[in-house]
Amino acid sequence: MNETKLYKLLGDVRAGREPVGAAVRQLKSLGIHNLDFARVDSHRSLRKGFPEVIYCEGKTPSQVVAIAKKILQHDENLLATRASKETFRALKRMFPKAQYHEASRAVTVVRKPLTKRTGTIAVLCAGTTDIPVAEEAVVTADIMGNRVKKYYDVGVAGIHRLLALNEELLDANVLIVIAGMEGALPSVVGGLVDKPVIAVPTSVGYGASFGGIAALLAMLNSCASGVTVVNINNGFGAGYAASLINQLAR
Amino acid sequence: MNETKLYKLLGDVRAGREPVGAAVRQLKSLGIHNLDFARVDSHRSLRKGFPEVIYCEGKTPSQVVAIAKKILQHDENLLATRASKETFRALKRMFPKAQYHEASRAVTVVRKPLTKRTGTIAVLCAGTTDIPVAEEAVVTADIMGNRVKKYYDVGVAGIHRLLALNEELLDANVLIVIAGMEGALPSVVGGLVDKPVIAVPTSVGYGASFGGIAALLAMLNSCASGVTVVNINNGFGAGYAASLINQLAR
Amino acid sequence: MNETKLYKLLGDVRAGREPVGAAVRQLKSLGIHNLDFARVDSHRSLRKGFPEVIYCEGKTPSQVVAIAKKILQHDENLLATRASKETFRALKRMFPKAQYHEASRAVTVVRKPLTKRTGTIAVLCAGTTDIPVAEEAVVTADIMGNRVKKYYDVGVAGIHRLLALNEELLDANVLIVIAGMEGALPSVVGGLVDKPVIAVPTSVGYGASFGGIAALLAMLNSCASGVTVVNINNGFGAGYAASLINQLAR
Amino acid sequence: MNETKLYKLLGDVRAGREPVGAAVRQLKSLGIHNLDFARVDSHRSLRKGFPEVIYCEGKTPSQVVAIAKKILQHDENLLATRASKETFRALKRMFPKAQYHEASRAVTVVRKPLTKRTGTIAVLCAGTTDIPVAEEAVVTADIMGNRVKKYYDVGVAGIHRLLALNEELLDANVLIVIAGMEGALPSVVGGLVDKPVIAVPTSVGYGASFGGIAALLAMLNSCASGVTVVNINNGFGAGYAASLINQLAR
Amino acid sequence: MNETKLYKLLGDVRAGREPVGAAVRQLKSLGIHNLDFARVDSHRSLRKGFPEVIYCEGKTPSQVVAIAKKILQHDENLLATRASKETFRALKRMFPKAQYHEASRAVTVVRKPLTKRTGTIAVLCAGTTDIPVAEEAVVTADIMGNRVKKYYDVGVAGIHRLLALNEELLDANVLIVIAGMEGALPSVVGGLVDKPVIAVPTSVGYGASFGGIAALLAMLNSCASGVTVVNINNGFGAGYAASLINQLAR
Amino acid sequence: MNETKLYKLLGDVRAGREPVGAAVRQLKSLGIHNLDFARVDSHRSLRKGFPEVIYCEGKTPSQVVAIAKKILQHDENLLATRASKETFRALKRMFPKAQYHEASRAVTVVRKPLTKRTGTIAVLCAGTTDIPVAEEAVVTADIMGNRVKKYYDVGVAGIHRLLALNEELLDANVLIVIAGMEGALPSVVGGLVDKPVIAVPTSVGYGASFGGIAALLAMLNSCASGVTVVNINNGFGAGYAASLINQLAR
Amino acid sequence: MNETKLYKLLGDVRAGREPVGAAVRQLKSLGIHNLDFARVDSHRSLRKGFPEVIYCEGKTPSQVVAIAKKILQHDENLLATRASKETFRALKRMFPKAQYHEASRAVTVVRKPLTKRTGTIAVLCAGTTDIPVAEEAVVTADIMGNRVKKYYDVGVAGIHRLLALNEELLDANVLIVIAGMEGALPSVVGGLVDKPVIAVPTSVGYGASFGGIAALLAMLNSCASGVTVVNINNGFGAGYAASLINQLAR
Amino acid sequence: MNETKLYKLLGDVRAGREPVGAAVRQLKSLGIHNLDFARVDSHRSLRKGFPEVIYCEGKTPSQVVAIAKKILQHDENLLATRASKETFRALKRMFPKAQYHEASRAVTVVRKPLTKRTGTIAVLCAGTTDIPVAEEAVVTADIMGNRVKKYYDVGVAGIHRLLALNEELLDANVLIVIAGMEGALPSVVGGLVDKPVIAVPTSVGYGASFGGIAALLAMLNSCASGVTVVNINNGFGAGYAASLINQLAR
Repeated sequence: MNETKLYKLLGDVRAGREPVGAAVRQLKSLGIHNLDFARVDSHRSLRKGFPEVIYCEGKTPSQVVAIAKKILQHDENLLATRASKETFRALKRMFPKAQYHEASRAVTVVRKPLTKRTGTIAVLCAGTTDIPVAEEAVVTADIMGNRVKKYYDVGVAGIHRLLALNEELLDANVLIVIAGMEGALPSVVGGLVDKPVIAVPTSVGYGASFGGIAALLAMLNSCASGVTVVNINNGFGAGYAASLINQLAR
Repeated sequence: MNETKLYKLLGDVRAGREPVGAAVRQLKSLGIHNLDFARVDSHRSLRKGFPEVIYCEGKTPSQVVAIAKKILQHDENLLATRASKETFRALKRMFPKAQYHEASRAVTVVRKPLTKRTGTIAVLCAGTTDIPVAEEAVVTADIMGNRVKKYYDVGVAGIHRLLALNEELLDANVLIVIAGMEGALPSVVGGLVDKPVIAVPTSVGYGASFGGIAALLAMLNSCASGVTVVNINNGFGAGYAASLINQLAR
Repeated sequence: MNETKLYKLLGDVRAGREPVGAAVRQLKSLGIHNLDFARVDSHRSLRKGFPEVIYCEGKTPSQVVAIAKKILQHDENLLATRASKETFRALKRMFPKAQYHEASRAVTVVRKPLTKRTGTIAVLCAGTTDIPVAEEAVVTADIMGNRVKKYYDVGVAGIHRLLALNEELLDANVLIVIAGMEGALPSVVGGLVDKPVIAVPTSVGYGASFGGIAALLAMLNSCASGVTVVNINNGFGAGYAASLINQLAR
Repeated sequence: MNETKLYKLLGDVRAGREPVGAAVRQLKSLGIHNLDFARVDSHRSLRKGFPEVIYCEGKTPSQVVAIAKKILQHDENLLATRASKETFRALKRMFPKAQYHEASRAVTVVRKPLTKRTGTIAVLCAGTTDIPVAEEAVVTADIMGNRVKKYYDVGVAGIHRLLALNEELLDANVLIVIAGMEGALPSVVGGLVDKPVIAVPTSVGYGASFGGIAALLAMLNSCASGVTVVNINNGFGAGYAASLINQLAR
Repeated sequence: MNETKLYKLLGDVRAGREPVGAAVRQLKSLGIHNLDFARVDSHRSLRKGFPEVIYCEGKTPSQVVAIAKKILQHDENLLATRASKETFRALKRMFPKAQYHEASRAVTVVRKPLTKRTGTIAVLCAGTTDIPVAEEAVVTADIMGNRVKKYYDVGVAGIHRLLALNEELLDANVLIVIAGMEGALPSVVGGLVDKPVIAVPTSVGYGASFGGIAALLAMLNSCASGVTVVNINNGFGAGYAASLINQLAR
Repeated sequence: MNETKLYKLLGDVRAGREPVGAAVRQLKSLGIHNLDFARVDSHRSLRKGFPEVIYCEGKTPSQVVAIAKKILQHDENLLATRASKETFRALKRMFPKAQYHEASRAVTVVRKPLTKRTGTIAVLCAGTTDIPVAEEAVVTADIMGNRVKKYYDVGVAGIHRLLALNEELLDANVLIVIAGMEGALPSVVGGLVDKPVIAVPTSVGYGASFGGIAALLAMLNSCASGVTVVNINNGFGAGYAASLINQLAR
Repeated sequence: MNETKLYKLLGDVRAGREPVGAAVRQLKSLGIHNLDFARVDSHRSLRKGFPEVIYCEGKTPSQVVAIAKKILQHDENLLATRASKETFRALKRMFPKAQYHEASRAVTVVRKPLTKRTGTIAVLCAGTTDIPVAEEAVVTADIMGNRVKKYYDVGVAGIHRLLALNEELLDANVLIVIAGMEGALPSVVGGLVDKPVIAVPTSVGYGASFGGIAALLAMLNSCASGVTVVNINNGFGAGYAASLINQLAR
Repeated sequence: MNETKLYKLLGDVRAGREPVGAAVRQLKSLGIHNLDFARVDSHRSLRKGFPEVIYCEGKTPSQVVAIAKKILQHDENLLATRASKETFRALKRMFPKAQYHEASRAVTVVRKPLTKRTGTIAVLCAGTTDIPVAEEAVVTADIMGNRVKKYYDVGVAGIHRLLALNEELLDANVLIVIAGMEGALPSVVGGLVDKPVIAVPTSVGYGASFGGIAALLAMLNSCASGVTVVNINNGFGAGYAASLINQLAR
């Protein structure tokens, strides 16, 4: 139940197209559903604009399926991140429309795609090995109704690769910039554009990269203005925040 | 020289209101001005929508004044952050319109205020001691043309203080949420609204707060979606990013 | 041999129901039993109110069994934590009443359950993946003679899930609050109740959660009064301390 | 307004001793008082059993005084921690009963002392230099209505000093154990008693003590059961939690 | 070639029992033997009193065997630490006297045991899971010609286990004290004896033990005088240093 | 296409040996080739003097092969580091001249070896277990056209092994010094020579070596002048920088 | 009261030279003297061989004086470390024999110097700025009855300075080796001698020396056998442990 | 005494221009001069090509002067870094040619400047506040006989400032690149040139820059090849290493 559906429901009630009793039943079912191991919050898509997203790490396939069922009783679409293949297969059995996004390990169930907004979100990454994180951002932004443009392997060691894209980048409403190792890319991009930049550090690297800490610190200390940061490898969080920003532009 | 002024200049040239020679001189002066100790980038307000901001920490008052002079040759307004009183007095002597914002230690010179956008930015902070950081965000967002609403001392240990504001918060286009100690406030706010939340950790606390690391880590690990983070005490960065986001809503 | 049993024994001696010689033998056997690889402390249940608990990590199944035998010579009940299935099977062979608590990997042998105290301990956790830690606290508190109420998946990103429980929470004598990621839940709970709160950080999360450090620091810096903290994932320690507190309320 | 006063007020209303209008006014004034730089929560003593405590670090004397005035409109007693002498003098001018506890830098205003509970809280510290933290715990526990016994300079390098106290320690309902450097004292104490132990690491030490991290980690990893931990130097937090625990014993 | 053997050789030369040519050959062969992947230092037993010890971690079995062969050409005995079973089997094939010490994963080849010194080295450990580290110290001290006494599982949570040993401990010339978790044991022991204490932190623990950092820091910050520390899990280093100390007592 | 080839091509054009059309085609193909998952930069050998090097960690064999194909269309030689055996086999199938350097896990394809420079690069390592890192430096320096001399297992615990090499070391133009554990070797070497020293920390060690941090910090703090440092285990980076330095000496 | 004096007292009693009553009074006064802020342990010189040492950091001059008075009632000599000049002056007023060791900030009161042992302790430091730490070790070892030889500024960047001392170093019974920055000196020394080496990291350095962490880690990871480590800047601890070791050699 | 002077001396001896006795005296005086608090190494300029450099931090002015006197007995020129004004004045009194470089706090005494090499060293810094570190590198490289070109305030947030310099940068033999905050500049520069790049992190920044750790880690993880790193703020070390590299190009 998102805002659009709620408007429609109440409009139908006022117009007499929907009996009051049926509307009451639908609205009553909104709220928190206690599965003992999880409390599914079907009120969330009304409050946040998108239903709960399932973070699968550390949940059993059957827990994920039970939560997914609850969510899909009230919403059309579902996003589950960091899903194993086993979890995907369990979801697929229940929801034939489930799709597995291999690179990002995300599962989507799209029964009624959202209309795409006109503005675009640009997703850049510094190297080939950052792609899984980039793809998580792409899948998230896509299912939330955004157009996404991808620019992969444009790290600062070959700055010309980035500068060649300068004009295209200026067209995006918001940019997600992903990098591991020294995490310098968001600072350079942030200096080129007048739009918000969401920086995503990745755990790509070795030794003194400390699993992404080097990139994280670099991004938090960016000398470019307008750069904000999410957790290491958190492509989902970047895609989600970018979508909230892009929707302001409608 | 920002986008609006550039449009006007070129329009005036086309309409014959401005001699070509004068326009050439103005445009030629855009670019990088090498002061030896600094390269002032007067092209920035065209590229980024706001002139260079002076970070005063570690610069002498006379260096700050020299940079300010260069910027104010091409732009109407100036923001200088982390300024000592001594630096402020040096600026005041040169630019009588200079104002000192004591709480945040920011200096502004506003010769022609920007028109305010319609959307608002909400600035929340957890405790009284977080106010200097909050005020830096407020000053920044304000000079960049935004309406700001402040909600101070609404930390999670008295959650009712926050919940009482719930409806007001839903009105903002973007929320800046500032907290030290355990840094929990952005997670709670992020769960209540469907707008982007920029979290600012502060160095408020002692012992295992490690100068703001505890709050920073908490915010990076927020379980609420749509939260991005800036550096510890970086009120300026949050205000700047919030302005870039809010301007998408025009 | 706990305090109750000691009172009874001495009472029986005074009343002539127990021959002096037999009492001497029982009391003499109290003390430290050197198994070479371990010194089992059968005096502990008298001193601490509960017999030694076996932490199985890094011990072989046969070491655990040998220690368990020694303990169960003097006490009715046994708790072993972090036990592998293999260790459980070895215990089960020797003690048919042994039970395996799968979620928490704890083994209990309860030959004579303690009488339950009247007050209750509330165990809350933020997310589904925190449940193993929560269950370790539950098993511990339960075998030590406490009534436990569980509230799982009530993290702060959906604060309404927590506020709905407010009155129930006020009924508990002591609350164990478990969370990974940003570890904000104990601060919110601590602001709502006038009872001691024991916060347990978990290693749930990724990237900048650093295996639970983010949550640990958040809890140590809690702005709510009355919150104390135990080690990352230390459900046992929380359950034990909660039991010591709850027993004051008798 | 605490629970006792509320019972009395409502009893007076029912008995006709208090006009309804006056009671309404008193109850209406409960809640959050917005001073712009602070939101004073006069509902807290009802919810938490003790009025808000002012943490003075980072607040100006006049801010502290303004908050104190608001609190003392609804409550009899006040605790302000980490107060400078200047802050104390500002409070003293307004509240002649204000007292400065030099060692702990706490200020108390006691207009109507709480009745002391029967059980005691023991406060132990390892060395002379830990005393300021210990005294903060003592002042806190005292103003909240507890009897406190102090045992200072009983560190583990002279274990006989501690063992000599063993029987006295068994008498306390809860023990606060404070240590810097290697932070070993709570582990030894925790092995001797069957009561909850609250461990407080201090920043006493140098080099690899890292401002108290060594002691903090030692306490979090205590091999003794029943030990919980608060932030480095957080004597206040320990005293507060100990009071919540001790009050269960009434 | 150690000091004793050198004295004997030169004595034999002087006495004419050994032809000069043979002595020259023996002495010429002392020095560094370059195996390309290793430079074996057969001069070391003369300089340090014990031949090179092979740290097997990261070396292939055949590398270890090649180094062992070189060492055993000049010395009677060999110690190899952190050896896999595979490495042991390779050594056993070449040197039938090779023995595997399972708990510590050390291999010894003792062809001519050193005479035992009269003084003893005491090896204490806090818990059962610290035994592998303790055994590495024992094997090292033993092969270097020391008498060793073991006291295992005497951690501070049951301080009586330790105090019962007090007199025995006073008999040792040097004490190796091993502990994980909070690492408090060396501080307590250091306060009881007037002999050097070598503290060995172990990686036993979880969460905030950070693989032994908690114990390491505690030991470095010991409030007891006379305590020195070696690397985490470095039983070998403790045994070696204890032997150097014990040999001063001859 | 490196500088030499470019000179030749343009010389041929001027001399009429190469038709203009063919030269244009060759030059046009220089630049960035977008493979979607990677942007191969064939301009790099002109700009940097050596073609792009493939870091294989985190890339699939087929991604590596696709990138290698693109590079070898414009260049004669190829270096791929951190390659699995599987990746090597995939490259071998396509490029029969591919060679696997087992110790360092590097793959080289050398179709036309570069002429060796006259100056030499010395590669020293402290212990046998540092050899894989040393070999990565050797392979890198070798394929880039340098003569390399190796001195392995010359750590500071047997300083005579190093001093014996003193004169040889003075002959090198640049020295790569590799060490794990306490990382002291570069400081000693740096004090003996008047040439640049590149220090490479390795992750060899355990406990408080923290995966190479101890060695890294030691090297960054070297009291010897002329020492610079690369990332932990970064033999490639050291070899590459050494080659850039050595080529200045031609 | 140390062991020698105790033997003499009891001998005198047996020989009738000392009345029993006087002996009883002397022995009764041994034990712990509670000064409220400190418990002075006059039994320590009997148990540990040297009276309590006062660590002055964080104690007021009058606290130090009070403790010193208690100690000097039972012992001839006193050591107080990390004393300010103010503390020294307060001690000097009470004990005219008090001496201030400026470099190390130690105060000694020597009323009856201990007889010097025959063996020597060598104290080496890497640089001039390490001297304050070295001098603390020297003062400590000296007052405890040891001969000390000093070798300052012999860091590894000029290894010849150290090698020139090689034979002298072999004469010492135990070596204290002090270094900041990369902390390499103990590893080199440890490879040259067959005696125990106590390594002391200092906070000398900047940047990535992190206040001595770099040197500390280097020393803990020393590849030389026989090296043990004390806390950063802990010259006292090194001198104390060296004295305990040296006394074994008598 | 450097290599050139040594050649001349021996040539003069051979040619009979210098009596043998005088040459012997000169050569004998080379070596280590023990000042008790320092061992001055006058052999160093022969071994390393430049006399000892005095690091003044932590040394008293009189210690610095004593060391300087010793050095200037054998060498023409002197460099002292991190000198206070007081130290400078003490040097100036003794050596009238002493010069103070205010920005970098370096003192130089140049009695006979070295001939400049033909190649240049480029020194770049990201921001105005990095200049002190840059100037330390400049002073060092200059006194060691190098031509230096400076490019200040060319940070990556205004990448055009850097790209405008591209051709000039290609002319340098070696580049020193200095940056605080996110430390991205060396990675971008490293991708543009085919010469060695020495990266210097600075402590410029706040919050999560952790005194330069963020920049240090970024530089160690640089994705550009040919970048090596020195300690935080170590302008001297960078200048020294750059000089060693540049001298290979003669």
